[in-house]
Amino acid sequence: MRFLIIGGSDAGISAALRAREVDPDAQIDVLLKDDFPNYSICGLPFYLSGETPDWLSLAHRTEFDSISIRRGHQATRIDPAAKTVTVQTEGRGARTFSYDKLLIGTGASPSTPNIEGWQLPGVFLLHTMKDSFAVHEYLDSKKPRRAVIVGAGYIGLEMADALTHRGIEVTVASRTKAVLATVDSEFGEAVGQELRNHGVAVFTNVEAQRIIRVGDHLHISGSQGFEHDCELVLIAVGVKPDTALGIDAGLQTGDKGALLTNRKMESGVTDIYVAGDCAETWHRLLNRHTYLPLGTTAHKQGRTAGENAMGGQCEFSGSLGTQVVKIFDRVIARTGLSQDEAEREGFQPFTVESTVNDHKAYYPGATPLRARVTGNLATGRLLGAQLMGTWGAEVSKRIDVFATALFHGMTVDEISDLDLSYTPPLSSPWDPVQMASQAWSLATAQYRKETECIR
Amino acid sequence: MRFLIIGGSDAGISAALRAREVDPDAQIDVLLKDDFPNYSICGLPFYLSGETPDWLSLAHRTEFDSISIRRGHQATRIDPAAKTVTVQTEGRGARTFSYDKLLIGTGASPSTPNIEGWQLPGVFLLHTMKDSFAVHEYLDSKKPRRAVIVGAGYIGLEMADALTHRGIEVTVASRTKAVLATVDSEFGEAVGQELRNHGVAVFTNVEAQRIIRVGDHLHISGSQGFEHDCELVLIAVGVKPDTALGIDAGLQTGDKGALLTNRKMESGVTDIYVAGDCAETWHRLLNRHTYLPLGTTAHKQGRTAGENAMGGQCEFSGSLGTQVVKIFDRVIARTGLSQDEAEREGFQPFTVESTVNDHKAYYPGATPLRARVTGNLATGRLLGAQLMGTWGAEVSKRIDVFATALFHGMTVDEISDLDLSYTPPLSSPWDPVQMASQAWSLATAQYRKETECIR
Repeated sequence: MRFLIIGGSDAGISAALRAREVDPDAQIDVLLKDDFPNYSICGLPFYLSGETPDWLSLAHRTEFDSISIRRGHQATRIDPAAKTVTVQTEGRGARTFSYDKLLIGTGASPSTPNIEGWQLPGVFLLHTMKDSFAVHEYLDSKKPRRAVIVGAGYIGLEMADALTHRGIEVTVASRTKAVLATVDSEFGEAVGQELRNHGVAVFTNVEAQRIIRVGDHLHISGSQGFEHDCELVLIAVGVKPDTALGIDAGLQTGDKGALLTNRKMESGVTDIYVAGDCAETWHRLLNRHTYLPLGTTAHKQGRTAGENAMGGQCEFSGSLGTQVVKIFDRVIARTGLSQDEAEREGFQPFTVESTVNDHKAYYPGATPLRARVTGNLATGRLLGAQLMGTWGAEVSKRIDVFATALFHGMTVDEISDLDLSYTPPLSSPWDPVQMASQAWSLATAQYRKETECIR
Repeated sequence: MRFLIIGGSDAGISAALRAREVDPDAQIDVLLKDDFPNYSICGLPFYLSGETPDWLSLAHRTEFDSISIRRGHQATRIDPAAKTVTVQTEGRGARTFSYDKLLIGTGASPSTPNIEGWQLPGVFLLHTMKDSFAVHEYLDSKKPRRAVIVGAGYIGLEMADALTHRGIEVTVASRTKAVLATVDSEFGEAVGQELRNHGVAVFTNVEAQRIIRVGDHLHISGSQGFEHDCELVLIAVGVKPDTALGIDAGLQTGDKGALLTNRKMESGVTDIYVAGDCAETWHRLLNRHTYLPLGTTAHKQGRTAGENAMGGQCEFSGSLGTQVVKIFDRVIARTGLSQDEAEREGFQPFTVESTVNDHKAYYPGATPLRARVTGNLATGRLLGAQLMGTWGAEVSKRIDVFATALFHGMTVDEISDLDLSYTPPLSSPWDPVQMASQAWSLATAQYRKETECIR
């Protein structure tokens, strides 16, 4: 059994490791176009901030259990009939690999921004280890004093934190009405305030349009009179799936152009699997495939593909879109659907925000936790939750309690039935997750009563 | 509708609040033998450590939404035929309250220790606000230099932390082979080490037997040559349910003498409910009632009883025995069954310990998290989990992910399907909860293989 994997990031390596667990005898080759197998792309901001001084430590692992990791091997063509992959190697020309089972885990690339001048020196898109070395080298050699970050998603805001940490004066230009558009604007506005509290200038509703070089610095301009001088521009406006290889091999595409797959991570072309940021994602709440590229999902999809390539029959259980980010001292997390998303999908969502302490106020260090719970008025079921609190207030694993509840289709009311842990320094007899759920139930009852009165 | 509640701690107040939510018109009276409605008993160690300077802040709440809180009202007799309760009031003699529905939430009392001299001045059992005032007053006036704590459960160890915080030299005498017998001895031994690292002397396998007064101090002795001088002895050797009133009214008792109940919290005697530490607890994994007094459970049982007293039909969903405690800088948590408990119950448990970082090691501050996962060899189902890590490493809410998985009867393998949150400062692409589950699966597969080889 020869299992060939194109791509050595989360999906590819997870597939390889799982295949190895399942079949100790399979020959497993991972084709890696660069030199960095299974590096943590999510760690790049911390390398650039200086908090992670050694980039080598960004490797999720360096031991690969008799998996053959082939660096500098850029796959250029798949022949599904012959079951071969043509590869351009660094220095040693073209080679052909045959396979019994193939996984395409080519990942995603940064979206090309619609900004004039984005290819100027001093302007960077951050996605690969190589990108990050370029930024690092630029930071070290040019010592930029001012940076403008275009895009206010996870990477953009983590980089705002990272560059501030380095002492650089940071400006964020966000196209959306509040930063961090993956959460509700109520939270986005608070995150904007957190950025400002740390000296970051935040501009919202701004479309960056043009970058020019003026003497020794860059000048960036955009809508609403946005004009800024700086020495560094970072652009982080999302990613698009890398699908050329797959499409060329006859694979179909779906949501946002990502490679189609079923829940077994089969592509539809015989013996070819897909996983990770190049592929669609089964959404557990929507009951259909979407494009939702996340490292956690890439690991799970890769594991599923790896097991099935070795003869397994398992299905990817689906994503809930669970995400968390730390921006300075604040942690913001979400799972499931927001009010707007749920409305668009035809649910009858109702969202209630409440604020509770992360632990009993009488024990020192309690901090407020803002929770937004979205439930379905028609069924009482939980649809999603968003949490925002202080770093150290167990925000991340609290969203995971919601995520686990969501995984099982619990109603909001049923969350109070969970037997969660309590000690005064860490929680309350009803955990904040439960208090927020109870606030939803009370507000919903009140809303129903008022709606009935109106009728 | 007159809803009468005996006991104003967690169960009683939760019942009252829920009843008020369900029926805004009901007359709700809570009979409180002392002066402290809904105080956080779990907070007493922090009051005594000085971390919570004002005991008034220990109140879970001070507003009771038109619930009549009757302080200094000691119920002395229930007449189920007449549906009345006789009450001894402070200063105003005996009174009789009638009820339509009654809840007995009399709680528990400290187990009387089998130690000669335990009633001497300077020896304390810690359970009520009044007990805690007595200890506080003793600490302030006598300024004890040395304390011996008999019992190494949650309260005993929290008090070891609390008194050390006050600068007192603390000795713990534990009857069990390791402290904190509610978790496996592998963890108990590490907790013992944590105590010693903070200057606490720890003695295990010691049965305290005798306390005598010698001049200006106390002398306590026990098995294995345990001999100690001190100025303060705290005894915390568990609790027993307060059931006299219930038994007198014709209620039945079950496990450990606690009041029998069904999952609706009905006592079996018409219109009398029971909840909290005086009552049995439905155990969700064991599918039967046990005695497992916990504040979290008391809240849930009280809420169930309060809803049903107002005409509801809800059932208590059951306890998983989820617990967490912070001892100095270490947090120890558990949910479900341990290996020993599961064996005793006739399961085929298998426990695997693994150690993983709480978050990506490349981000500063990562600390090791020890996880012990217990699964059923026959079914693959999760039976329980124990976690130990550093305060701040989201140990508490990680056990809650296990608890939520357990609530839904997940297999250990299925835990890897959960969509949990990840950012490098707070987790890994597979959360530690999932890495520990995968370690269980791999070790189990290995164990099966070896067992087959032997056969």
